[in-house]
Formats: sequence, structure tokens, C-alpha cells
Amino acid sequence: MTAAGQQRTLAVHETPIPGLLVIDLPVPGDNRGWFKENWQRAKMTAAGLPDFGPVQNNISFNQAEGVTRGIHAEPWDKYISVATGAVFGAWVDLREGPSFGTAYCHEITPETAIFVPRGVGNAFQTISAPAAYTYLVNDHWSEGAQAQYTFLNLADETVAIPWPIPLEQAELSAKDVAHPRLADVTPVPPRRT
Amino acid sequence: MTAAGQQRTLAVHETPIPGLLVIDLPVPGDNRGWFKENWQRAKMTAAGLPDFGPVQNNISFNQAEGVTRGIHAEPWDKYISVATGAVFGAWVDLREGPSFGTAYCHEITPETAIFVPRGVGNAFQTISAPAAYTYLVNDHWSEGAQAQYTFLNLADETVAIPWPIPLEQAELSAKDVAHPRLADVTPVPPRRT
Ligand SMILES: Cc1cn([C@H]2C[C@H](O)[C@@H](COP(=O)(O)OP(=O)(O)O[C@H]3OC[C@@H](O)[C@H](O)[C@H]3O)O2)c(=O)[nH]c1=O
Ligand SMILES: Cc1cn([C@H]2C[C@H](O)[C@@H](COP(=O)(O)OP(=O)(O)O[C@H]3OC[C@@H](O)[C@H](O)[C@H]3O)O2)c(=O)[nH]c1=O
Repeated sequence: MTAAGQQRTLAVHETPIPGLLVIDLPVPGDNRGWFKENWQRAKMTAAGLPDFGPVQNNISFNQAEGVTRGIHAEPWDKYISVATGAVFGAWVDLREGPSFGTAYCHEITPETAIFVPRGVGNAFQTISAPAAYTYLVNDHWSEGAQAQYTFLNLADETVAIPWPIPLEQAELSAKDVAHPRLADVTPVPPRRT
Repeated sequence: MTAAGQQRTLAVHETPIPGLLVIDLPVPGDNRGWFKENWQRAKMTAAGLPDFGPVQNNISFNQAEGVTRGIHAEPWDKYISVATGAVFGAWVDLREGPSFGTAYCHEITPETAIFVPRGVGNAFQTISAPAAYTYLVNDHWSEGAQAQYTFLNLADETVAIPWPIPLEQAELSAKDVAHPRLADVTPVPPRRT
């Protein structure tokens, strides 16, 4: 990715969405390609990442530019990056409270990771294909867990995400086309502890 | 990867190296690409994978066919797969005892994962490029931890790994060229508990 010595320093940055974090990852390159510590519990918790306790690692492979997935707020936290390609990431706070509806966008390359707290809607669009989108989550998905998801339509006019590729030309799932507009979303209540 | 319905069923298989496991992963495909649960603690421990407790996720990106890395036995367990491309994986038992020197090879595509117990030497060669090799480990790497690695030369004549691309044409690191032959390897002692 970058030549040795030019790489980024590990750093964790806040965003306008409370708890949504952008992580700069060092990615040293050599004659073979590149290497990265995509997630490293000790260094990253010291740098400000929650000790979120992943139990599952998912990979979605997105064949073409314009593949778009979301907007899904799930009942667990996510730590996201890419193993190849690049995506335009978009997040919308769907939690009950003053930040409901706040949106944030950030490109994800192999040198960037994003921590998405539960209740924040997650979406992305492939801008360099193919893109292998890899993420860690701290609870187990199941068909049944989808009943606890909160969804927002990718085309919502209120949050108006500036998709690099217009959604009419994008590749979506049938499910994602059908999600509600922001006015029809029930905000995610605070977690019962 | 495969059309829905044709995919593999999650399964964990033993190999001739004690504790080295091959995992078949379901990889459902659709109009966007494919999706996989690359690691899923609950389902996989139920299927026979150790509850190994990862604390770090590494990704190596291997630009060309013939990139070859190894043979490294590290002081932690590894759970390995690919996010794109394919590699020829090779493992050599370097633990003290009757299985010392036993070798095993298996192709890793997105539909296969491998669990490598500590003390087993790990290596791979890219056979479909680029290949993004992703793995979880249950202890933190550091420059200093390399003093506890056990290394074997990729070209060792005794184990004679049948590399698809001859090593003379392969892309190696300077470090990996210098590792000892099997006769000069100190077997990894049983772990102090
Ligand atoms: C999330 C998930 C999905 N699946 C299966 C179900 C489908 O066969 C396939 C794809 O699932 P979708 O519900 O279509 O998910 P997708 O639209 O790809 O959304 C995913 O990527 C974007 C992310 O926002 C979100 O976490 C995740 O649901 O994978 C699993 O087997 N396990 C999972 O954990
Ligand atoms: C393993 C590791 C490496 N690094 C850095 C050091 C180098 O700048 C770069 C590549 O490291 P190498 O020692 O050259 O490792 P490599 O030859 O790529 O071997 C790796 O892939 C094959 C695997 O067998 C092995 O786990 C791992 O060491 O990444 C890290 O920052 N963290 C790590 O965990």
C-alpha cells in the first residue's frame, strides 16, 4: 500500500455521530504486497477503541462498482475495513435522542477502519471493485435476529447521502430497496443492560 | 461464490497433523457478489473448532501469483482464510514428538478456512492473484515475539513441499530465504501452562 516509513500511524478519531470512530491503520508494503494488523486488541483499546469482544467475522465480496448495501442498524457493534478495493461508507444515527438522523460519510480503503456502535445505521457502496468488505461483530447473527434490525432506505431524501454512483445505476438487494424513509423509522431505544 | 442452495455446509475436518483443522465454509452468492461468516464462534465451536479467543486480525495482500510466505511456527494459534484469490497452503508440524516433520497441503479459497495450532509451521503461495489472506490469532504479535518463532526453510528437501510455482520463480522476503533446514530446527517444546 505505502512504502515502509511513509505509512500512517495508528490513530482513532471521533466523528459527528457519538461512538462512531474512524481508525487510521498502518499498512507497510514490500516486494510481496502489503501487511496490516486489521484489528489488534491491545494497541487499539489503548488508542481509544472500545474492547468490543468480537465473536464473528463476516466478509462480503462486492463484484462491481456501485454495489450498495444498507442501511442496517443491527443489535451489535461492528468494526469494519476492506481487504481489497475501496468503498464509500455512510452512517446514519438511528438511536433515540438528539443525534437521531445525523449522517456521516467516509471512504474505506485498506488503511481505514470504522467502528460502528449498535443503533447506528450502516451502509456502503463499492467505488473500487472488486471490494472485499470485512467486519467483526460482537454478537451472533441469525435469521431471527433480523427482526431486531432497524432499517432506513438508501435513497432517503432527508439524510440525502451523496452516493458516488446514483442508486438507479447501483446494484442493490430486493430487501434493501424496500426499507422505510426516516420519518417512518422507529428510533432504536437505549440498550437494556 | 456458489449459487444459493449449492453452497457447502459448515464442517470441520481433521488432518494428518494433530490439531490442524480444515473448515468448509458456506458462501452464498447473489447479484451483488457473495457473503460469508468467515468465523462464527458459536456455530464453529459446536462443529469442533477450539474456542481459541482471537485478539488480533491480520491481513496480508499478495499482489502476484507465486508470492510465498513462511514457514513460520508462532507462539499462538491461527485461523486462516482468504477474502479474494486463492493460495496453496502448506503446514509442517514442528512440535517435539512423533509427528515432528509431518507435512500437509491444502488449497485455501474463500470457501475454506484452516485452524493452525501453535507449534505447527505455516506457509502459503498465491495461486490466484491478487490474494487477500486474512487470519485471526490469539496472542499479540510484537517485534520481540519473533524471537519465539520457529522457522523452517520453504525449500527444505526433507519435507519437500510441492509448490505449484517453483521457488526460484517465486517472490519471497529476504528473511524467509534464510531459514534453516529441518535437521537444524529445534523442535517446539510443549507449552508451559
Ligand atoms: C449478516 C449475515 C448474513 N448472512 C447471510 C444471509 C444472506 O444469505 C447473505 C447476505 O445477507 P443480507 O441480509 O443480504 O446482508 P447484506 O445486505 O449483505 O448486509 C450485510 O452487509 C452490510 C452490513 O450493513 C450488514 O451488516 C450486513 O447485514 O448472508 C449470514 O449467513 N450471516 C450473517 O451474519
Ligand atoms: C506478523 C506481523 C507482522 N507485522 C509487520 C512486520 C512487517 O513490517 C510486515 C510483514 O511481516 P513479516 O515478518 O514479513 O511477515 P510475513 O512474512 O508476511 O509472515 C506473515 O504471513 C505468513 C504467516 O505465516 C505469518 O503469520 C506472518 O508472520 O508486517 C506486524 O505489524 N504485525 C504482525 O502481526
